[in-house]
Amino acid sequence: MGHTMIKAGIIGATGYAGAELVRILLLHPEVETLFVSSVSFEGRNLADIYPNFCCLFHGKTDGMLLTADQVTERADVVFTALPHGIAEQYADFCVKTGKKLIDLSADFRFGLDEATFKTWYKKDWQFPAVHRESVYGLPEMNRDQIRTARVIGNPGCYVTSATLALLPALKADILDTDTIIVDSKSGVSGSGRKPTEANSFCECGESFSVYGVGSHRHQPEIARNCSIASGRNVGIVFTPHLVPQSRGIVSTVYARFTAGYIQKLAGGDSGADMSVPVRELYRNWYKDEPFVRVLPEGLQPTSRNVRFSNYCDIQVYVVNGGKMLEVVSTLDNMIKGASGQAVQNMNLMYGFPETEGLEFIPPAF
Amino acid sequence: MGHTMIKAGIIGATGYAGAELVRILLLHPEVETLFVSSVSFEGRNLADIYPNFCCLFHGKTDGMLLTADQVTERADVVFTALPHGIAEQYADFCVKTGKKLIDLSADFRFGLDEATFKTWYKKDWQFPAVHRESVYGLPEMNRDQIRTARVIGNPGCYVTSATLALLPALKADILDTDTIIVDSKSGVSGSGRKPTEANSFCECGESFSVYGVGSHRHQPEIARNCSIASGRNVGIVFTPHLVPQSRGIVSTVYARFTAGYIQKLAGGDSGADMSVPVRELYRNWYKDEPFVRVLPEGLQPTSRNVRFSNYCDIQVYVVNGGKMLEVVSTLDNMIKGASGQAVQNMNLMYGFPETEGLEFIPPAF
Amino acid sequence: MGHTMIKAGIIGATGYAGAELVRILLLHPEVETLFVSSVSFEGRNLADIYPNFCCLFHGKTDGMLLTADQVTERADVVFTALPHGIAEQYADFCVKTGKKLIDLSADFRFGLDEATFKTWYKKDWQFPAVHRESVYGLPEMNRDQIRTARVIGNPGCYVTSATLALLPALKADILDTDTIIVDSKSGVSGSGRKPTEANSFCECGESFSVYGVGSHRHQPEIARNCSIASGRNVGIVFTPHLVPQSRGIVSTVYARFTAGYIQKLAGGDSGADMSVPVRELYRNWYKDEPFVRVLPEGLQPTSRNVRFSNYCDIQVYVVNGGKMLEVVSTLDNMIKGASGQAVQNMNLMYGFPETEGLEFIPPAF
Amino acid sequence: MGHTMIKAGIIGATGYAGAELVRILLLHPEVETLFVSSVSFEGRNLADIYPNFCCLFHGKTDGMLLTADQVTERADVVFTALPHGIAEQYADFCVKTGKKLIDLSADFRFGLDEATFKTWYKKDWQFPAVHRESVYGLPEMNRDQIRTARVIGNPGCYVTSATLALLPALKADILDTDTIIVDSKSGVSGSGRKPTEANSFCECGESFSVYGVGSHRHQPEIARNCSIASGRNVGIVFTPHLVPQSRGIVSTVYARFTAGYIQKLAGGDSGADMSVPVRELYRNWYKDEPFVRVLPEGLQPTSRNVRFSNYCDIQVYVVNGGKMLEVVSTLDNMIKGASGQAVQNMNLMYGFPETEGLEFIPPAF
Repeated sequence: MGHTMIKAGIIGATGYAGAELVRILLLHPEVETLFVSSVSFEGRNLADIYPNFCCLFHGKTDGMLLTADQVTERADVVFTALPHGIAEQYADFCVKTGKKLIDLSADFRFGLDEATFKTWYKKDWQFPAVHRESVYGLPEMNRDQIRTARVIGNPGCYVTSATLALLPALKADILDTDTIIVDSKSGVSGSGRKPTEANSFCECGESFSVYGVGSHRHQPEIARNCSIASGRNVGIVFTPHLVPQSRGIVSTVYARFTAGYIQKLAGGDSGADMSVPVRELYRNWYKDEPFVRVLPEGLQPTSRNVRFSNYCDIQVYVVNGGKMLEVVSTLDNMIKGASGQAVQNMNLMYGFPETEGLEFIPPAF
Repeated sequence: MGHTMIKAGIIGATGYAGAELVRILLLHPEVETLFVSSVSFEGRNLADIYPNFCCLFHGKTDGMLLTADQVTERADVVFTALPHGIAEQYADFCVKTGKKLIDLSADFRFGLDEATFKTWYKKDWQFPAVHRESVYGLPEMNRDQIRTARVIGNPGCYVTSATLALLPALKADILDTDTIIVDSKSGVSGSGRKPTEANSFCECGESFSVYGVGSHRHQPEIARNCSIASGRNVGIVFTPHLVPQSRGIVSTVYARFTAGYIQKLAGGDSGADMSVPVRELYRNWYKDEPFVRVLPEGLQPTSRNVRFSNYCDIQVYVVNGGKMLEVVSTLDNMIKGASGQAVQNMNLMYGFPETEGLEFIPPAF
Repeated sequence: MGHTMIKAGIIGATGYAGAELVRILLLHPEVETLFVSSVSFEGRNLADIYPNFCCLFHGKTDGMLLTADQVTERADVVFTALPHGIAEQYADFCVKTGKKLIDLSADFRFGLDEATFKTWYKKDWQFPAVHRESVYGLPEMNRDQIRTARVIGNPGCYVTSATLALLPALKADILDTDTIIVDSKSGVSGSGRKPTEANSFCECGESFSVYGVGSHRHQPEIARNCSIASGRNVGIVFTPHLVPQSRGIVSTVYARFTAGYIQKLAGGDSGADMSVPVRELYRNWYKDEPFVRVLPEGLQPTSRNVRFSNYCDIQVYVVNGGKMLEVVSTLDNMIKGASGQAVQNMNLMYGFPETEGLEFIPPAF
Repeated sequence: MGHTMIKAGIIGATGYAGAELVRILLLHPEVETLFVSSVSFEGRNLADIYPNFCCLFHGKTDGMLLTADQVTERADVVFTALPHGIAEQYADFCVKTGKKLIDLSADFRFGLDEATFKTWYKKDWQFPAVHRESVYGLPEMNRDQIRTARVIGNPGCYVTSATLALLPALKADILDTDTIIVDSKSGVSGSGRKPTEANSFCECGESFSVYGVGSHRHQPEIARNCSIASGRNVGIVFTPHLVPQSRGIVSTVYARFTAGYIQKLAGGDSGADMSVPVRELYRNWYKDEPFVRVLPEGLQPTSRNVRFSNYCDIQVYVVNGGKMLEVVSTLDNMIKGASGQAVQNMNLMYGFPETEGLEFIPPAF
């Protein structure tokens, strides 16, 4: 091939999102070198922390965990998978030195709205200017801006599932946006690698629980996306739950149709399935999207069917006698909900085929 | 003790609800003899089918699986844990011979409303008269009628969790009953013992899925309970999901407050937590209930905390800026959602202490 | 009843073994009062740490976590569920004040053999005299001594499963004791409540692993028991593994028969199942044991069948053409492997029926 | 590329091994077309049975399930993933028409030893001649013969893990081959897709059990491999267990060293770790194997670290004071234990790079 391959760096490579980035980039055909860093494990080898990688670095890295500065200096594109509020400085450096940065924290998810970030994340911006360079990295919303961006704010996992579930209906302006209910369920990997009582096997195995009612930080991000999509202020009631499985998010979304759309649906063939026209609207909206599958009638979203892949599956129902839309979406929280989407953004930023290195087929079981 | 102990019979003892009944009744201090039957395994021993019972019959049964007729003839109280539409004949026999019957199927869950039963279960009633003897066996709604009933229709598992989550608010008339959303999640035991692809380990392990949107048979039963409680026709949007765990149901319920109640909440102390008065209302409503625990502020319902017990845990939130009630309830689908509740009904029917034989403390892990 | 009920205390009530002791003793008919202590959570309420106990103290405790000294002063019998090397001081106090102590750590598992304890646990004894009062609390080995003991060393979980699997054969002197292989598998609760990477859901879910080959501290305890039982020095190769489930241990034990017994088996009916006489030997040995079930031919031990109970299930096979014994045993590591056995010891020490408060029937699923 | 890509066919594409073959071959760079058949679902689309494949056929197949005959006629290489005793006829056809066949059943696992096959599988050979064309497809044993074979008998999953654990030691002739103990643990997918009580979620979740003691059909296959490797008759005691996880096998293998080797080990540096020379022997033996990782000291085999990959991880211990070898090996039963190994064989047969299409990196969680 005539073009040059790239050097990628991961700051925070020993967290779960970081480890998934390593796994994806090791097999990515356009990445020739990988630099990895970790504050917790600096100087050690990544294969000691994650023995699954043992012997599998494919010559792209020796696995040595460098400092963050070493990574930003050597890489062309830097992925930051860090606690919220730390990526800004690396973004500033990358912008100044002509590199690209894709951040998996919340730092660049709110555009220029520092106030909302501050309210929910309790931190000020240190480098306000760099936010003007940033684009929200949901390809299904912002593909064109992503292509030319220098800094990407990669979306939250719940947020991706909820936004993709609502986007076509909001764009078609068929929803009452006063109150939309997002009831989400996530696997345990969403809580990260750090061991806590909440993610210990005996505490979350064989158990389903609710958490963060009214206080989860993905609520303002979902609301922001929906408001941008609809052009109106959208009220979101968001409830996350914890499922005893490692991976996967399912979001069940309930929204009332506009009066006009209720009437339109009611005017259709009596006896016809009112889900059909809405599913058609979704299918049409996503018809060119490589990673969204609007399921045919009769198939129910199942997190297993997208596990270990970058796909998001969506099913559409009309319920409550034609008054409400119910959408169920599912994705792998660590791939389409985090690291896969980050690589999808990298592909767009570099003009690589959007699906390059991401065509994992979800295993059946 | 001066009183006589009773003889209990279980028709359908080899299904999951039947096996749980056996386990509970073997240790129930008022049951002296247990008769068990099974169509599938007639003539075999229950301990062959369920080796957990091996050597543990405590002299109440020899474990031999009899015919249904043998059970009805010998027992004082008969539990039927059968596919829908079969219990009627045994109920008829029990009523005529002065015995009591507690049915765990849907046959007696709709009072005298044969039409709804027929619409959802596709069967006619064969013994219409016997339904006049039946009482819906949710003690928190119908305790007094249960005490004198001869036939009990034991509630559905999802239904119990949803009804207990809504009862105080409906009775207090603070909800807009046009549309109430019940988003429920159940462990796999809810699908019964018969092996299917849907309940095989590799198909449902590490996976969360939705099913039965708009078509689950517990929807009309929830709607019926809510309508009775509120005195108005309540619209229910019910969505069940499958969780990769054996036991437990969590229902997350969303309802809009009446305009009047929204105003009342808004008129309270600004800055105060609007959940407090509603939680107080729930706490008050359930203050004498032995098996409902309204959780203190800050505790999130977790199915693990009620597993293997007859308790239902409930937490109450006010969301959407004071416009909506969100209630999360959890119970063990096989105990409070089936066999434990059936024994609670038996206790009431015989004047035993309501908690007799049911004070299992949920294990912490 | 004419006799006085007892006051029980638990030091270390917020660990997993402690929490199981609380659960069992709350329903034990001979315990009228329960005192609980915790170093980590002193001054807080047990129901805050374990919400499963919420409202279920049955008047035996208010749940307040006291100091260890308060517990030893107020209780008649003290259970210590602490890290190794701490219980001695409480045992000394109890012996001096005429109380009884049951220790769930390893402190009293080695009789007067301080050297072995020191080699494996890296600690000296501080109160050597108190060890002369102690008895190893495996009722199937030491029932009579337990009845009159003042201090009990409650056996390890793996150790109980391995010892019960070997006891009848060792007593019958049919095994070559040079090398016995104990291949054990344990659920995650065995690692305790403290969150670590090893017990986090995403690290141990959907994964089976080996650990502690040749270095696990239960090895010398198994060897000691076997040597005592056989009167000879027994060589044990012990390998523990971690299973993705909360509870349960399965031990698969392999031992070569003595030359004499091989000959004896070979001399039986050709064509007959050589497992029969050995199973009969086991059945006979355990025929009066309330908590050991030697399974009938054809039933395979399954940890589910003893879960949440105090039973140990055992199956016996003759393999390798009549040259080897293979025994598989299973128990709930937290009950028969820890807290249930401790209460069984308490029952013996107080002359209560041995099964009092321990007749939990394992649920079928 | 100058060479021609191949057409692959899968007979039995809707079983678990078949579905994994589909997943692997859809992304295999040398496979241009895929034909799939299924007796159970003929005429339907594979994506209906396995919705994970929805939209992901990459132009290699339309997913239509053909007849077996259609597949054998159209494909260059045929994979048979069928019940035992059916593949022979397709092998015969392939040999006669110059095609290649890779069978995942036991039909071709015993070379020309029909008697052993018949004893364990209760079937006669219908096409004895075709067995002369077959090679046992364990690349680590038979790489050169596989390259030129026309029919491959793909090894059993347990067998692969046990054979790889023993091969270097048997070849080095350091083991007493009278009795080798293979204690294996497998995830539930090993029991196949057909729903049974044994593989239902509530029966095998949260439970560990033993099965098939002395009667599992992989025993003679392990014995055969070991006997071939050592040149002597090897006695195998094989015990399989069921683990509550979908994928993964761990085999813990125990063997006594020869007297000579015990002496040799004893003669080394006193105080030195006797595992070192044996681990070195293993490391050396496997140094050029692309899919076997002999772990460095201190790393314990964990099925998670090889999940969804074609790697087999092995760790070596010397136990029992230098008298015994203990080896623990782990692999994904559906990949290196079935479909991945089948594709590895295909690569060898066609002269493709052996790792082509198989370099999946196991995810960390």
